Amino acid sequence: MKKIRIGIIGAGRIGKIHADNLLRLPGAEVAAISDLFAGEELEAWAAQRGIGQVTKDSGAILSRADIDAVFICSSTDTHVGLIIEAARAGKHIFCEKPVSMDLSATEAAIEAVQAAGVKLQVGFNRRFDHNFRRVREHVLQGTVGEPHIVRITSRDPNPPHPDYIARSGGLFMDMMIHDFDMARFLSGSEVVEVYAQGGVLVDPVFAEHGDVDTAIVTLRFASGALGVIDNSRQAVYGYDQRVEVFGSRGSAAVSNDHPNTAEVSTAEGLLRDKPLHFFLERYNEAYMDETRQFVEALLHDRPLPVDGIDALQAERIAHAAKLSWQQGRPVKLSEIGTAGAGAGVQVQSEVV
Amino acid sequence: MKKIRIGIIGAGRIGKIHADNLLRLPGAEVAAISDLFAGEELEAWAAQRGIGQVTKDSGAILSRADIDAVFICSSTDTHVGLIIEAARAGKHIFCEKPVSMDLSATEAAIEAVQAAGVKLQVGFNRRFDHNFRRVREHVLQGTVGEPHIVRITSRDPNPPHPDYIARSGGLFMDMMIHDFDMARFLSGSEVVEVYAQGGVLVDPVFAEHGDVDTAIVTLRFASGALGVIDNSRQAVYGYDQRVEVFGSRGSAAVSNDHPNTAEVSTAEGLLRDKPLHFFLERYNEAYMDETRQFVEALLHDRPLPVDGIDALQAERIAHAAKLSWQQGRPVKLSEIGTAGAGAGVQVQSEVV
Amino acid sequence: MKKIRIGIIGAGRIGKIHADNLLRLPGAEVAAISDLFAGEELEAWAAQRGIGQVTKDSGAILSRADIDAVFICSSTDTHVGLIIEAARAGKHIFCEKPVSMDLSATEAAIEAVQAAGVKLQVGFNRRFDHNFRRVREHVLQGTVGEPHIVRITSRDPNPPHPDYIARSGGLFMDMMIHDFDMARFLSGSEVVEVYAQGGVLVDPVFAEHGDVDTAIVTLRFASGALGVIDNSRQAVYGYDQRVEVFGSRGSAAVSNDHPNTAEVSTAEGLLRDKPLHFFLERYNEAYMDETRQFVEALLHDRPLPVDGIDALQAERIAHAAKLSWQQGRPVKLSEIGTAGAGAGVQVQSEVV
Amino acid sequence: MKKIRIGIIGAGRIGKIHADNLLRLPGAEVAAISDLFAGEELEAWAAQRGIGQVTKDSGAILSRADIDAVFICSSTDTHVGLIIEAARAGKHIFCEKPVSMDLSATEAAIEAVQAAGVKLQVGFNRRFDHNFRRVREHVLQGTVGEPHIVRITSRDPNPPHPDYIARSGGLFMDMMIHDFDMARFLSGSEVVEVYAQGGVLVDPVFAEHGDVDTAIVTLRFASGALGVIDNSRQAVYGYDQRVEVFGSRGSAAVSNDHPNTAEVSTAEGLLRDKPLHFFLERYNEAYMDETRQFVEALLHDRPLPVDGIDALQAERIAHAAKLSWQQGRPVKLSEIGTAGAGAGVQVQSEVV
Repeated sequence: MKKIRIGIIGAGRIGKIHADNLLRLPGAEVAAISDLFAGEELEAWAAQRGIGQVTKDSGAILSRADIDAVFICSSTDTHVGLIIEAARAGKHIFCEKPVSMDLSATEAAIEAVQAAGVKLQVGFNRRFDHNFRRVREHVLQGTVGEPHIVRITSRDPNPPHPDYIARSGGLFMDMMIHDFDMARFLSGSEVVEVYAQGGVLVDPVFAEHGDVDTAIVTLRFASGALGVIDNSRQAVYGYDQRVEVFGSRGSAAVSNDHPNTAEVSTAEGLLRDKPLHFFLERYNEAYMDETRQFVEALLHDRPLPVDGIDALQAERIAHAAKLSWQQGRPVKLSEIGTAGAGAGVQVQSEVV
Repeated sequence: MKKIRIGIIGAGRIGKIHADNLLRLPGAEVAAISDLFAGEELEAWAAQRGIGQVTKDSGAILSRADIDAVFICSSTDTHVGLIIEAARAGKHIFCEKPVSMDLSATEAAIEAVQAAGVKLQVGFNRRFDHNFRRVREHVLQGTVGEPHIVRITSRDPNPPHPDYIARSGGLFMDMMIHDFDMARFLSGSEVVEVYAQGGVLVDPVFAEHGDVDTAIVTLRFASGALGVIDNSRQAVYGYDQRVEVFGSRGSAAVSNDHPNTAEVSTAEGLLRDKPLHFFLERYNEAYMDETRQFVEALLHDRPLPVDGIDALQAERIAHAAKLSWQQGRPVKLSEIGTAGAGAGVQVQSEVV
Repeated sequence: MKKIRIGIIGAGRIGKIHADNLLRLPGAEVAAISDLFAGEELEAWAAQRGIGQVTKDSGAILSRADIDAVFICSSTDTHVGLIIEAARAGKHIFCEKPVSMDLSATEAAIEAVQAAGVKLQVGFNRRFDHNFRRVREHVLQGTVGEPHIVRITSRDPNPPHPDYIARSGGLFMDMMIHDFDMARFLSGSEVVEVYAQGGVLVDPVFAEHGDVDTAIVTLRFASGALGVIDNSRQAVYGYDQRVEVFGSRGSAAVSNDHPNTAEVSTAEGLLRDKPLHFFLERYNEAYMDETRQFVEALLHDRPLPVDGIDALQAERIAHAAKLSWQQGRPVKLSEIGTAGAGAGVQVQSEVV
Repeated sequence: MKKIRIGIIGAGRIGKIHADNLLRLPGAEVAAISDLFAGEELEAWAAQRGIGQVTKDSGAILSRADIDAVFICSSTDTHVGLIIEAARAGKHIFCEKPVSMDLSATEAAIEAVQAAGVKLQVGFNRRFDHNFRRVREHVLQGTVGEPHIVRITSRDPNPPHPDYIARSGGLFMDMMIHDFDMARFLSGSEVVEVYAQGGVLVDPVFAEHGDVDTAIVTLRFASGALGVIDNSRQAVYGYDQRVEVFGSRGSAAVSNDHPNTAEVSTAEGLLRDKPLHFFLERYNEAYMDETRQFVEALLHDRPLPVDGIDALQAERIAHAAKLSWQQGRPVKLSEIGTAGAGAGVQVQSEVV
């Protein structure tokens, strides 16, 4: 039986999750893992899993002829360079989001991938979530008719560490980018205009970095539909991840996932446990599924479910949102340029 | 426009509720109210509502030729006597449940009603509840197919006052009788066998009166379906009134009604307010509706939605349940005799 | 016992609802009703309810010395004139919303009311809804902490009749005005900036009248909180009325009311009935309660729960929203002028 | 790092699930698998998972000195023999339920285990379910106070294959045995009396084998609490697995798990997908967790979460239920004898 031989670049939390998920797939083999800080701990971890190579040098993975694909799980600033390198080495690529905070760099990465004829999947894991996928199915099946309003709520249980805030790229690029992708995924239409409102209501540290911790962004889609996303860096009751698509024939909405269905009734009222705490718990199965689909696509040479253009478009919306917030006005996506004349990516009104 | 002229016998809480509900119906007029303890307070109350006659003597109401119908809301021990008297006076009758704790007395009341050719409705208000009625509709429409299992949960928020317990007739006759009627109503089939388990878990005072405060009763219906009812005198989270009919094609179940749909999410969990507190809140609309249907039936000479036979059957099941609990064995309904040969009420396997 | 004697001006659907609700209040008496088209039908209706006077002339009501208060339920264009007339006649006033589509006219009405020392309540019935009121209580009690995000969804089951659309004042003034009031009510803070997106997605007839049928409006409050309202003229599954207040300590959210709690499980899935159909069903109790509170306030000379300033502020937000939509830019409330220097209403950052 | 070396006996569906779950545990190693029908297919399956030994002979596994524990996943009639053999070989044992349909055989197995000083866990997987475990926690924490009523609903989506019915042991032993264990687990008290009602409402084939397809069983616990279980072999809407514990301070109840939280609102009503289909989907994580806890207990020499006594008690209740159904009377657990004087298992009123 054919197996896809894979190297992991970046052995942080998400790199290890991808590795463990790959180990559960009969069609995949994790052959190598690299990390700048690789040491005894990582070697023990790899040994326990039968991963043959542990290295500090990603190049040592990219140069192996027997490696079919890489998972790029290192820090965002290394993504584009590694994508280009991997593409030139003929490796298929799974890259965490965002590809880059610089649109021309993202385009360069896409061009390198296209030139090399390799496949690139971007880690928009939420597309694989059982809830959001079900809403998407209802949209595709016509259950809700023509979408009129797309509503997305996305709130984290806690703000990130202050150190991270400075280099996060800001709420729109770091956090809401998932929701921009979700908006395209659920509506099936490209975003053409954005208006962003933001505020610092959770912690003044966000203001110190020219960032916001609370935001509402409205969207206009090419189809004429309207959208709205609200984000907060702190929902004390836990990870809040809900969407609704409302249309001419009805609506499809998802509420949060909970660790159990227990409802307790006491003299004080009715109580349920909080939603699943954060992305590792909530998107546990989605991470498994995005990995499975990546491997399946490589095994059977099928198209990937989410690719570089999806990454680019979400990044363009994030840039538009930030500009809108800074200038206090609606911003058209057409204002957000691409690398160069003709070099740009063809964007259509339909998300495919 | 024709109006039904009505007298209320018994001006306790339930009598006043019926009066106020009748006052909202264009087709009804409350002409008189009687109570053993009628006085200034009741007169003021009646005056404010334009009720012309206030009396201590129910006979003064029954002897009025212009009165079409009476609501018997006095204590249970007076029901049968008043029904017979009212029937002989040619009045239509609405009587609170139970008609009597003595089956032959209940039969005598039914016979008097039949002999006089008047109509008798019994106050099984829950049949008019929006939730239970919807389940019944689903059963009738075949949504659930052939009923296989009927489940009823009925728990009060607080035990009654100790004074009341002694004369209540016991949990099976006082409280579960509503559920026995509900079981017939939902299943559309007569109960043929009962097994009752009971315990004193809430308050030892129940044991002092040879009563229980917690009980589970299983039922076998003529159709072959099975049923189960659980009762408690004390659900600290409020009035708990749920049913489920499970059958060959599915299930229809209702949960409790709540004063609002607010859900609060905090660091401690998700909280909802308790269910509507007790029968006055929960069955507020059902009381209105049973009264409306009674008046409508009289105005248009239509059959009543719940009659004396329904009262008798529920009482027979209550007797069987008590006997089962006392003797620790299943009891067949056929063991629970009726007044005399031929005098008995025809019982069929279908509840109509 | 003292009674408030009331005249109803305008005997359309809402006028009759108010009349019937007043008839259920011991402290109120409906003494008269006027309507331009009063005739036999209205007279019969009034006779059945014991309403003494039926007239085509509202002046005949306003000139009666024994009338304490009027309900203005006639068409919007008559509101201001009638309020001024009633105030001068010393009557307390309940007026349906909006008071006017012309801000200076609304201000003139408020000034007349203040000059006459009478009370004016405006028909923002949703403030009295059991669900929204519960969310407001949680905000006031601090359950959700400082509000950060207010979300309101408000969708009608069907578009209004085309004839109505032309004279409705448009979605922002006719429909979303309730939500603007709700935003102030729930947040406890004044709106300082508005951005409106709209579209014609339901029926092109809206475009013919320069109107929209679908809209998303984002709000910025004086407190720094953000808000978003979405409206549609057509939710095929019924009246959709939900809100959420998210804050530093949690969130309080309400879902729709349903006619029953029945859940049917079949081979096809789990099915519940649609929400209560439209405002008459959903806000049935809220209409009763706003009337009760109006009457109570008059009986005991207490402040009204919602007054002319509330009407004016909601109208100003509606104007700002329409301007924002027309000009494609955020609009500050301070741009929406009031009648004249000094004549304007003092607006504070706290909604009281 | 120490690993528990395990052999699987029986390579049917459940045996393979246990094997795959064990492969995900760093502390376990699957060293061998046996099946009467082992062949090429099983060898390929084992090779892909790095399982070294595939054999038709369970004895070949039991005789290996390097094997620490076995999973007995073969047919029920082989359980006792294999438990005794494995115990004598000094292996720890995980055995699927029921251990046996013959109480004295079950006792013999327990005695062999005790004599050998090995550990025996029985496959009551539902104890490890996230929902039921949460209810148990609430009971232990006192959230519901003293349990008064335990309600368990357990309905399969489809009846088993007719071939299976004859050798299943009947609904009480084959299906409801899980619920008997759950009743003990949730109440924390031993069952002292049982009354069983049953019917053939789904398919006459059950009657041919002296079996029922629908049943309601009431329980009395040593603590005085009451219980009720309802079972059906066919819930067309899917696997229905719910429990409630109601007590002096409140209630804890769980509803079903669903594949997603999507709710679709259309002109027809509100629709949700059916519950997770059957035990493989619903108890997927519970199977993983029971295996994890078994391995952890062996690694750290800790007590097992569910043992032979638990198996014996559930089997005794199943026998009592069947007798009750056959004889139409309540049956005391004390009527259900154990192997011999003194040989019997000590049963206490508290489930530990």
